[in-house]
Amino acid sequence: MTPRLKKLAAEFPHHKNIDGLLVVNDTNIRYLTDFPAGESWLLVTPQKAVYITDFRYFLQAKHGLKGVSVKPYTKTPCLVLFDLVRSLKVRRLGFDERHTSVAQFKKLKQFCPRRTKLVPAGGLVESLREIKEEGEIAQIRACLKLHFKALDLLKKVVKPGVTERYVLARLERFVRSHRVGFAFDPIIASGPNSCYPHACVTDRVIRNHEPVLIDTGIEIGGYKSDLTRNFFLGRILPSVRQAFDAVKLAQSTAIAMIKPGVLAAQVDRQARNTLKKFGLAKYFGHSLGHGVGLDIHEDPRLSCKSTSVLEPGMVVTVEPAVYVPNQFGIRVEDMVLVTQQGCEVLSGHYDQ
Amino acid sequence: MTPRLKKLAAEFPHHKNIDGLLVVNDTNIRYLTDFPAGESWLLVTPQKAVYITDFRYFLQAKHGLKGVSVKPYTKTPCLVLFDLVRSLKVRRLGFDERHTSVAQFKKLKQFCPRRTKLVPAGGLVESLREIKEEGEIAQIRACLKLHFKALDLLKKVVKPGVTERYVLARLERFVRSHRVGFAFDPIIASGPNSCYPHACVTDRVIRNHEPVLIDTGIEIGGYKSDLTRNFFLGRILPSVRQAFDAVKLAQSTAIAMIKPGVLAAQVDRQARNTLKKFGLAKYFGHSLGHGVGLDIHEDPRLSCKSTSVLEPGMVVTVEPAVYVPNQFGIRVEDMVLVTQQGCEVLSGHYDQ
Repeated sequence: MTPRLKKLAAEFPHHKNIDGLLVVNDTNIRYLTDFPAGESWLLVTPQKAVYITDFRYFLQAKHGLKGVSVKPYTKTPCLVLFDLVRSLKVRRLGFDERHTSVAQFKKLKQFCPRRTKLVPAGGLVESLREIKEEGEIAQIRACLKLHFKALDLLKKVVKPGVTERYVLARLERFVRSHRVGFAFDPIIASGPNSCYPHACVTDRVIRNHEPVLIDTGIEIGGYKSDLTRNFFLGRILPSVRQAFDAVKLAQSTAIAMIKPGVLAAQVDRQARNTLKKFGLAKYFGHSLGHGVGLDIHEDPRLSCKSTSVLEPGMVVTVEPAVYVPNQFGIRVEDMVLVTQQGCEVLSGHYDQ
Repeated sequence: MTPRLKKLAAEFPHHKNIDGLLVVNDTNIRYLTDFPAGESWLLVTPQKAVYITDFRYFLQAKHGLKGVSVKPYTKTPCLVLFDLVRSLKVRRLGFDERHTSVAQFKKLKQFCPRRTKLVPAGGLVESLREIKEEGEIAQIRACLKLHFKALDLLKKVVKPGVTERYVLARLERFVRSHRVGFAFDPIIASGPNSCYPHACVTDRVIRNHEPVLIDTGIEIGGYKSDLTRNFFLGRILPSVRQAFDAVKLAQSTAIAMIKPGVLAAQVDRQARNTLKKFGLAKYFGHSLGHGVGLDIHEDPRLSCKSTSVLEPGMVVTVEPAVYVPNQFGIRVEDMVLVTQQGCEVLSGHYDQ
C-alpha cells in the first residue's frame, strides 16, 4: 500500500462507512498508484489494493506497480472484482457515481454478492487530490518555469502578419524541443476571435491594433500549468484597454481574498462584483477558476455554485474575463497556491 | 436537421419506440452535427435538434451549427432540456446508458416531468457510425495515404543505435510538417518492450538483431488510420520469424473470411485457430480488431464476445499478434473495408 492508498483507506470510516472502494477513473488510479492506468479498475480496501486489468496491460502493470497486486481478467472485470470482495469480506463497497455509467452500474449490481452493498462514494480521491503535496507543487512549478520561457518566445512571435496557426506551430516546436507536452490544445485567438472563450486556432492573419488572447499549458509528468495572457499589437482601442484594466483589477481583488477558510464562491463573487462596477460583469459568463493538477480542470472550483472552502495546498487558477460578442475578449489567468497565511501567485513573477 | 439527424430520428420507432434522444457523447454529437462539441448536450426529436451548451461555447456553436438550434444554459442543462421536452411533447426520451453516469442519471430523473419516461437507448448513433459513408471512407483513405509516407520514413529512421524516443520525435516532426495529428499516442516498442501490447515509448536504444513494433495512426478532420508494422533489424531469431509468419497467415486467413453477413466473432475465431496450429494462440490475448472512424476504437468489434454481423461500409482493423512475455511481440495490423462482395484491404498495397 502506498502512502496515498493508506490515506485513502483511513477516510473510509468517515465516508459513508465504506470498507472498500472501487476506483475506475484513470487519473484517480494514477494518483493513487503512480502508474499511468488505462481501461483498468482499482479495488482499495484497508488491507490491500488490487489493480484489475486485461491482457494488454497485465505484464506492464505487474512490472510497474509497487505495493499493489495485479489481477488479470478475461471476460469481465466484475468476476475478479467480486471474488476479491468476497474473500476480503467487503460489506459496503463504495463506487464513484460520477465516473460509473448507468450500464456499468447495472453490471456491478448483477455480479455483486447479496451480502455486499454498493454505496455511492464519489469524490473521495478527488478531495485528496485537492490538497497538493510538496512534490506535486514542485512539479507544477517546473511546468510554470518552462511556461514562462514559452511566454518569452510568444512575445517575439506574436506580430502582425503571422497567422494564429503559425504561432501554434512555433509554440509546438518549443514544447517538443523541451520534450514535454501541452496540457491542453492551446487557444490562440486574435482580434474578434478572442470573443470566444474556447476559440479554435484558425488561419487568420494577426493584424496590427488588435489584442491576441493566448491560453496554454505545459504538462510534465502528468502535472500541468495553465495561464492566459493577452498580447496587444499597435494602438489599442480605449474600450479594450479599459476591459483589460478592469479584468486585471478583478483578478487582483479576487487574489487578495484567497486564504485558508475562505469560500471559493466568495472569491468568484468578488471578481464579478469588481467587473460589475465597470458594467462588464455581463460579459463574464464562466466561473472564475478551477483546481489544476493531474487534470487541467479539477476540484476545487472557484464558481458561484461551489461549496468548497479554501485550504492550504490547493492550487487554483484565477481567470476573470470580458468577452464582447463579435468584438474582442480579454482573459487574464494566473495560478495561485493557497498557503498557511494566505496565498502565493505561482505565476506572479511573470507579468506582462 | 442534417441528413444524419434525419436518419437517426427515422430509427426512433424501431428503437424502443422513443420519440426523442438525448446525446451526451462528444463524438456522437460531432458525427450528427459536424460541430466539434465539448461539454454540451444534443436533444434530437423527429421535428428538430437542439444543442444545449454554456456561455463558453454558445457563440461559437451559434455560428458553427447548421440545421440545429442552440440554447444556452446557466445552472444546469437539465432545466433547458426538460423545458424543450415539455414543449416538444417528448413522451419517451432515450438516453445513452453507456455515456450517462449514475450521478447524471439521478439528476435527469429529478428534473424529468412525470409524463415523460427515460428510456435506456444507447448504441443508436454508434450503429449509424458503423457504416461509413463515401465521404468518411475518403477521409480514412487520406489518413492512410499519409500514413504510408510515414512508414517510408520509418524504414529509414528505425536503425540500431537510435532510441525509441528518437523515432517518436522523427514521426512527430513528420506529422506536424503535414499539419495533421496523431490518432493516438504511437507505440514504438523495441526488442523485449514489444511484448507489451500497449507499450510506452522509452529511452531504450534499438539494437541490431531485434524486432521493433510500431503501432501508429494519422488523424485528419477527426478520421483516423491505425496500422501496426514490425521492423526487423539484422539477423532475426527463428522463433521471431516463425511468429511473424504465423501472425501474417492468421491475418490473411481472417481477412479472406470478411464479407457481408459474416459474424465478427467468427473472423476473430479464424485468426485464433490459425495461431493455435502453431501453438501460439496462448500468446494472443486481445481481440482481433475494431472499427475505426471518428473514434480510434469503435463498433463493430472483431472479438469472441461480439454479436455484430459484418455489413458493407464497415471499416475494421485486423490485428492478430503474438506476445511472448519478456521476450518479444509481433503484431500485424491492417485496415479493411467491408464491400458488397467481400472486402478491400485499405492498407493492402502497402506491405513490407
